[in-house]
Amino acid sequence: MLLKGKNVSRETIKNKKDVIKVVIKESFKDPVLSIIEREKIECKRMKDNDFNKMYGNEAQGIVVYAKDYEYYDLDELLTSVNNNSLCVILDNLEDPQNLGNIIRTFDALGGSFIIIPKNHSISVNETVAKVSAGSYNYVKIAQVTNLNNAIKKLKDNGYWVMGTDMKGDTNYDEVRVDMPICLIIGSEGFGMSKLVKDNCDFLLKIPMVGKINCLNASISLAICMSDIQSRRRKL
Amino acid sequence: MLLKGKNVSRETIKNKKDVIKVVIKESFKDPVLSIIEREKIECKRMKDNDFNKMYGNEAQGIVVYAKDYEYYDLDELLTSVNNNSLCVILDNLEDPQNLGNIIRTFDALGGSFIIIPKNHSISVNETVAKVSAGSYNYVKIAQVTNLNNAIKKLKDNGYWVMGTDMKGDTNYDEVRVDMPICLIIGSEGFGMSKLVKDNCDFLLKIPMVGKINCLNASISLAICMSDIQSRRRKL
Repeated sequence: MLLKGKNVSRETIKNKKDVIKVVIKESFKDPVLSIIEREKIECKRMKDNDFNKMYGNEAQGIVVYAKDYEYYDLDELLTSVNNNSLCVILDNLEDPQNLGNIIRTFDALGGSFIIIPKNHSISVNETVAKVSAGSYNYVKIAQVTNLNNAIKKLKDNGYWVMGTDMKGDTNYDEVRVDMPICLIIGSEGFGMSKLVKDNCDFLLKIPMVGKINCLNASISLAICMSDIQSRRRKL
Repeated sequence: MLLKGKNVSRETIKNKKDVIKVVIKESFKDPVLSIIEREKIECKRMKDNDFNKMYGNEAQGIVVYAKDYEYYDLDELLTSVNNNSLCVILDNLEDPQNLGNIIRTFDALGGSFIIIPKNHSISVNETVAKVSAGSYNYVKIAQVTNLNNAIKKLKDNGYWVMGTDMKGDTNYDEVRVDMPICLIIGSEGFGMSKLVKDNCDFLLKIPMVGKINCLNASISLAICMSDIQSRRRKL
């Protein structure tokens, strides 16, 4: 992956294992340079003009060539479950902005891991990495071939599976939170697929009072997830 | 403004007062056509190929030429205040994606109105309108020359002013909510400006436990706003 910009470059360099090489413009100054030096990371300097022509201004003077994201194995992620566990399934999300924002929110609010399907779904690419402000380095993501098998595994390991749906019957802020929870966020246009929905223990809805009443996927996740974590803190 | 795509076109046509004319491709089918006909809105049909060449595929076969957003007058918005009032000040936001998402979230969660500064801030443009999925038609926005004067007016009218800040001293989910509330969201890179911060009654923080710990502006607003509305429902 070619990662452009300060935030994502900094975090990926700090994490170092995935860095192939760094390219900076001559005038680039940032504390991250000391890490590059200390860790002996390959770093090429280019004239400012050449750099900007090659990578564009949005690169802010630094790019990182990094290995692709290495997905986690769901079975390994399931070896430690407790009543504060909180994972998220993204059911066929397509928008890299959404996945990037979800990863960033998920990191900040302290989720356990994310599951995405191998097909018909966005995966961790350069845009996702950038929008995540580099937090993709710290979030565990598993890619699975069959979401419904994954849901079964989660249930077998004690998770309660909660889909988010405009026609859900339980308000998101009234469901029990003292147990391992898996939230499911549906795709941007179509919500959850039917079988996934049928496999949920609860269908949560976010009460809405406006004229449009449809929230962005990353906003829906942030609302449900922050409420779960908030009520868990108050238990 | 030239609005491209189904959602934003539909909502703007329903709201009709701002529509100058509509352009559709010949094969375009949608229930909104009956509104266009009923309301005698000027509507031009183009050959599919010509339409796509002119407006691009992201237009989904329909564009609306609309008048610019007409901002509200803050003094008029302040004539009705009660303990469920909830307004938001956006302190020098720059990203149209953020403003569009905030407007959409604000509409769905039932806020009263939004205040943005006239200078150094994004305003309602074509991108904002599109990202808001058309909900900009239903959200009241005031543009003011001086945020600190606006804050004073809000306080004079009974609002409690709550900034969001990583170093805030009050958890967002612990502040009182049974009073008129004004939330302030700072700019993407720099947070709230110093004077605005000094004028807040409370500085709210969102507890974060991740490695990056910085949330997107629209996500921060969604978390704080949904919690206020959730706790108000439970009062």
